Amino acid sequence: MENNVFYPKVKRGQTTFRKIINAATKIFYEKGYANSTIADIANEADVAVGTIYIYFKDKYTIYYHVVKDFQNKIRVHLNKHVKGLTTRKEKEEAGVRAWLMFILKYHRTYEMIWESLYIDRSIFEDYYLSFAKSYVYSLKKSQDELNDVDLETVAYMLMGISNFVGLQVLLTKKQEEIDVDNIVKTVTKILNEGLFKSLNK
Amino acid sequence: MENNVFYPKVKRGQTTFRKIINAATKIFYEKGYANSTIADIANEADVAVGTIYIYFKDKYTIYYHVVKDFQNKIRVHLNKHVKGLTTRKEKEEAGVRAWLMFILKYHRTYEMIWESLYIDRSIFEDYYLSFAKSYVYSLKKSQDELNDVDLETVAYMLMGISNFVGLQVLLTKKQEEIDVDNIVKTVTKILNEGLFKSLNK
Repeated sequence: MENNVFYPKVKRGQTTFRKIINAATKIFYEKGYANSTIADIANEADVAVGTIYIYFKDKYTIYYHVVKDFQNKIRVHLNKHVKGLTTRKEKEEAGVRAWLMFILKYHRTYEMIWESLYIDRSIFEDYYLSFAKSYVYSLKKSQDELNDVDLETVAYMLMGISNFVGLQVLLTKKQEEIDVDNIVKTVTKILNEGLFKSLNK
Repeated sequence: MENNVFYPKVKRGQTTFRKIINAATKIFYEKGYANSTIADIANEADVAVGTIYIYFKDKYTIYYHVVKDFQNKIRVHLNKHVKGLTTRKEKEEAGVRAWLMFILKYHRTYEMIWESLYIDRSIFEDYYLSFAKSYVYSLKKSQDELNDVDLETVAYMLMGISNFVGLQVLLTKKQEEIDVDNIVKTVTKILNEGLFKSLNK
């Protein structure tokens, strides 16, 4: 990958690099990778096609960086909403709510991320493996608040819960604030008390 | 859809229909929809291309039926493993284990199902909306064993948990029986007791 991209050192180049990534994100998000062209991206970024080729070898190289950037965008958004909270419970509740707000803003998030499965499976794998790794690192710090369970499995469970209540919001069109509140409330209750009544424990 | 497909009434036609669906499932599963042709399917099914066109208007129509059929295959597999179990706890534990066994057998399940997002979003939506609907119907019957929570959200949470521990198994290559046992154990413990220690409740 390092041979296929030129990471600019001077500010003007970095500004252009960022313009291209932002434009490519918009184009890939709206049209999908297959239907997007370098010309589309150049047009959106308001640069010459030749300028794009200074920084990126091909469309695939741009896409690789767009996914990394999008993943970072998600991380920054989630971190912003859990910053300052002290207990793991509070963080998980805020994290689910923050994810739903993100999905409501970017309805095509799943299309964007899961398309990597058909472009280059290693991008898809890195995406979730790296999210899980960060999650486990974070969960380890709160380990005394958690039941004695395997943290990697917990990370995948929590990612799965967030991803699928995100799908619930999109598919069932439950998109009002009260709907989001109710979903977050149910997730939180189950993470706190389990799904099953204590009588049966 | 009804105008695009011919559902045979006589046994020989039904056998041919089934042969085509099975062949198309194998081809789409291995090559993906975009890379598959009617000729590929005819070759795999050992029928003439013209025979396929007796039953299906086009590749999309075949795909529509393949996804429905695949969904049914999953349902039958899961039901087989929860049949005869009495408590919801037992059913959920058996269900997660059964899903992981299915994923270990069919590694390209996610590629197969999520490709619908890029072919026809309504197929993707119907897939998860109908699974959720069946799940809620089933959860309602066990409602007295569950905490007081919204069952639709529970359905999506449980689908999310299963889907993502399935990804965990594929991405981290934790595919031995003991790995599957440990994952099922963690999921079960959290569904029973919650994620957080009681001290903090």
